[in-house]
Amino acid sequence: MYIDSRMFRLGNARNVIREMYEYGKSRAAVVGRENIYDFTLGNPAVEPPESLNATMMDILKNEPSIQVHGYTSAQGDAPAREAIANDLNARYGTHFHKDNFYLTCGAASALAISLGAIIVPECNEVIAIAPYFPEYGVFTENAGGKFVLIPPDVPNFQIDMKKLEAAINEKTRALIVNSPNNPCGAVYSEETIIKLAALLKRKSEEFGHAIVLISDEPYREIVYDGLKIPFLTKYYDNTIVCYSYSKALSIPGERFGYVLVPDEMEDSVRVYLAVCGAGRSYGYICAPSLLQRTIARVTGQLADVNEYKKNRDLLYGGLTDIGFECVKPQGAFYLFVKALEDDTAAFCERCKALDLLVVSGAGFGCPGYIRLAYCVDHDMIKRSLPVFKKLYDSYK
Amino acid sequence: MYIDSRMFRLGNARNVIREMYEYGKSRAAVVGRENIYDFTLGNPAVEPPESLNATMMDILKNEPSIQVHGYTSAQGDAPAREAIANDLNARYGTHFHKDNFYLTCGAASALAISLGAIIVPECNEVIAIAPYFPEYGVFTENAGGKFVLIPPDVPNFQIDMKKLEAAINEKTRALIVNSPNNPCGAVYSEETIIKLAALLKRKSEEFGHAIVLISDEPYREIVYDGLKIPFLTKYYDNTIVCYSYSKALSIPGERFGYVLVPDEMEDSVRVYLAVCGAGRSYGYICAPSLLQRTIARVTGQLADVNEYKKNRDLLYGGLTDIGFECVKPQGAFYLFVKALEDDTAAFCERCKALDLLVVSGAGFGCPGYIRLAYCVDHDMIKRSLPVFKKLYDSYK
Repeated sequence: MYIDSRMFRLGNARNVIREMYEYGKSRAAVVGRENIYDFTLGNPAVEPPESLNATMMDILKNEPSIQVHGYTSAQGDAPAREAIANDLNARYGTHFHKDNFYLTCGAASALAISLGAIIVPECNEVIAIAPYFPEYGVFTENAGGKFVLIPPDVPNFQIDMKKLEAAINEKTRALIVNSPNNPCGAVYSEETIIKLAALLKRKSEEFGHAIVLISDEPYREIVYDGLKIPFLTKYYDNTIVCYSYSKALSIPGERFGYVLVPDEMEDSVRVYLAVCGAGRSYGYICAPSLLQRTIARVTGQLADVNEYKKNRDLLYGGLTDIGFECVKPQGAFYLFVKALEDDTAAFCERCKALDLLVVSGAGFGCPGYIRLAYCVDHDMIKRSLPVFKKLYDSYK
Repeated sequence: MYIDSRMFRLGNARNVIREMYEYGKSRAAVVGRENIYDFTLGNPAVEPPESLNATMMDILKNEPSIQVHGYTSAQGDAPAREAIANDLNARYGTHFHKDNFYLTCGAASALAISLGAIIVPECNEVIAIAPYFPEYGVFTENAGGKFVLIPPDVPNFQIDMKKLEAAINEKTRALIVNSPNNPCGAVYSEETIIKLAALLKRKSEEFGHAIVLISDEPYREIVYDGLKIPFLTKYYDNTIVCYSYSKALSIPGERFGYVLVPDEMEDSVRVYLAVCGAGRSYGYICAPSLLQRTIARVTGQLADVNEYKKNRDLLYGGLTDIGFECVKPQGAFYLFVKALEDDTAAFCERCKALDLLVVSGAGFGCPGYIRLAYCVDHDMIKRSLPVFKKLYDSYK
């Protein structure tokens, strides 16, 4: 049977994170759930805001079913797009309107579609900065692009502008950034963003074509200590924003997000139409219709991010007290911890032997670190700290 | 700005059906809604079964939100896939199990993904039979395939086996069929399917590789007069079924369906994994999670198809009484009517001048016919018949 070898490889690939999670479940059956410290999955642990289910039920009960569950326009119905624009404008002082938004089945589809719209054979390189989400490479290759990875800026996890500059050439089509970052929890400072915008502008001029900045920002609202996230379209015109409500509303399974193509972007109308075309080409008809009506009413609301902050403080504080070197997370719900030996895989095995289930940074382009997802039960973190101490001491 | 020209063309393409629908809305504002006879859109007009909203509300109210809205496995959670397998087995005497199913965001994504999984450069031709759904060509080209269209088998709208045989060559990868058919309402007889299976088997042997039959069947349950739909996997092993709940449950906006890869298929496990990989490559993470839980409980239930039958009988009876030549629909909710002049576009304009809004068959690869979607208000059909009479008489 003829089978596309790339698709087979993608479908057959081991999902290391999922395997570790499954191991944790089977191990829990042996030693008891309370003795397993599972930090593997980035699945939100905080309830969605109460308004979410209440709104969904209100719509189901009171609005005409044929319309609630009916086709919408391909880019999404106007009320949802308008509500999203208004909410962003109120929170970030932007000037978006409904026709800047194409609603998607989450950020992954937003990224795949955006890359499909802008990658062309003569200009097909897409850069990302480690640590990064490995699907960036998958979506880039899907669109015929070549994926280029910049090493991490250790230990601050901002951007090494020299390395980035060296990677940009006449075939550079786009740079993908992800701040707040999965897996390291870092947030780009305004200073970083200003420098980045200046570099991209200069390089766009040098090579005679716009380099697109793709901002993957599902964690935009999950930030701590009153941090303000600079909204990238205000710093660099040729920015496409890919957003998901997965983390802000704790609804990752519902698949809802958008592509935002601002007016400031060069050829913005044509880019937007190519986004619509890529969505069509990949088999997207519209974002789920009940969700569209729901988001029209709840966009801007948040799950209780404070729960994540409590977890961050406990885990970051606990591990640094023990002696671990950690990147202090300013956003998202991941802690990046320096491995205690050069062989990160061996370090993960040492963790696993103590029932500390963690994910190697290697899969994110950043060996030498492990990722702890702290969107977990607070008490599990408490119980895990003596075990981390034992791990640390075993390396003395 | 570099923009993918194919994606731009797809996003910028006129949607003739949508334009006619929009025209109808603006025209209704002038002459009154009761004087517009809009047969353009295939949007279900029948309420979903009551159990649908009741089940959704029950889940929202009584199941843990974090799980209800959380990530599922990429292929869909086991309970939904099991329920779907059990329902099909009970209704069609098949022997599917959960691992034959990959849940998708509707039939369009199921088709795009299936084609992505099986098209390879050395064997990339995909055949469809007019009248056909134009997105078949879009999805085929998206996967690097070459789309081949067979002329319609007029006036029976079965399959002209000689023409099909002539189109099959060593590069033929797949044939897409759609029965019950949009836009003509025809259903393939068992005799047609037996002949088709024999031809595909013979040609697969002749060219030394399996030709895949892709069955696009969102209208599977919308059939009339007690007709039984032969389930294609029972006739031809190398069949992939692409299904959507859009029409059966009247939920086209929710985007829910599946790819079914039966065990009988050659290399079925590898094909299934390539389907998973294609879904991943196009940015699908999982089918919407609340819908997965809902479908696990309501799969096999139906919106009230009897309403469509009443409409079919009134419209088909009325138009044939006037003198129109129509294909009697055995399924779906479309009536295919022979145009009264050779220039189908001119005929559609004549209809439009009388506020009869219809769609030309040309876009479906079948000029000389018009499509009337009769998933509409029954009374509108009644009111339209004298207008159709006027149209008919104007050609005398």
